[in-house]
Amino acid sequence: MPYVNVKVAGNLTEDQKRKIVEGITELLQDVAGKPPESTYVVIDEVNRENWGKGGKLLSDKEK
Amino acid sequence: MPYVNVKVAGNLTEDQKRKIVEGITELLQDVAGKPPESTYVVIDEVNRENWGKGGKLLSDKEK
Amino acid sequence: MPYVNVKVAGNLTEDQKRKIVEGITELLQDVAGKPPESTYVVIDEVNRENWGKGGKLLSDKEK
Amino acid sequence: MPYVNVKVAGNLTEDQKRKIVEGITELLQDVAGKPPESTYVVIDEVNRENWGKGGKLLSDKEK
Amino acid sequence: MPYVNVKVAGNLTEDQKRKIVEGITELLQDVAGKPPESTYVVIDEVNRENWGKGGKLLSDKEK
Amino acid sequence: MPYVNVKVAGNLTEDQKRKIVEGITELLQDVAGKPPESTYVVIDEVNRENWGKGGKLLSDKEK
Repeated sequence: MPYVNVKVAGNLTEDQKRKIVEGITELLQDVAGKPPESTYVVIDEVNRENWGKGGKLLSDKEK
Repeated sequence: MPYVNVKVAGNLTEDQKRKIVEGITELLQDVAGKPPESTYVVIDEVNRENWGKGGKLLSDKEK
Repeated sequence: MPYVNVKVAGNLTEDQKRKIVEGITELLQDVAGKPPESTYVVIDEVNRENWGKGGKLLSDKEK
Repeated sequence: MPYVNVKVAGNLTEDQKRKIVEGITELLQDVAGKPPESTYVVIDEVNRENWGKGGKLLSDKEK
Repeated sequence: MPYVNVKVAGNLTEDQKRKIVEGITELLQDVAGKPPESTYVVIDEVNRENWGKGGKLLSDKEK
Repeated sequence: MPYVNVKVAGNLTEDQKRKIVEGITELLQDVAGKPPESTYVVIDEVNRENWGKGGKLLSDKEK
């Protein structure tokens, strides 16, 4: 019955999302016996202006 | 002092959101005595390309 | 495919949890057509020492 | 190793986000000795139509 | 800069947690180029009495 | 109407929690004009065995 939330800074392609969902679902089946049909994975693509690390916005670090 | 987060795949109309907020707030008052004014409900409408179930993106299942 | 997270300060009885899960699942079916089997509800009972409101811990407000 | 998620109704300016990230990161260093580099802060700006309080959408309260 | 939250019903062994953290961190590196050191994975083991599916508590389904 | 969730690895003292709640509530008032009474802060103290960084459990890094 797992629920997994993945937050990344910036965007992912549709194919990257597909592989993340496949990979996490298989991992939870292999490691913990969780049936794939019961695993939900929700991916949040967070604007770099809305993610801070080390006291700075990621969007500022790139400048 | 409840905080409730509702995540759904795809979109809701404004009226559906209104009824979800009303319904959950009343439920928590009736069942657990939580005062309505203290209940926050935050609704996330998640792109179907960002939600995986059974190892597949919902947007792929529909194809 | 909804996922709902309910956070309350303090504890709930098993029967209160049962009614919250039933009520939210029915609400999402009635209002938005979500099939009950696909709705997950996860309830977090948060220690009052770990919940702040108005700048104070709930556990301090009671003293 | 802290992870902090800030949800606000409506929008923030880039400068407000910058100050929130700086302030929370410093606070966790001062109060709990958490190294700034290990602190992540993720800010969610929630549409007022998607936030309920007191059983009503914030967008309805303003009308 | 990913942050991943894994919620499962019931408990995991320390070794299962180790493999979940390793597997997700590698996956995000392979699929999306995320540096392992920047990936946080937080695992929540949720009491079956606090997880509802299909309108019922998981702890009731087992009876 | 802010809702803030702070996750830390390991435990905090009651006084550290008090200062975190005070500090974040003041910060959101000063920076973004959020009324203190409407700010909720929920603190999760996560077991080091349940937090992974760099592909390893924090509890393994200490050994």
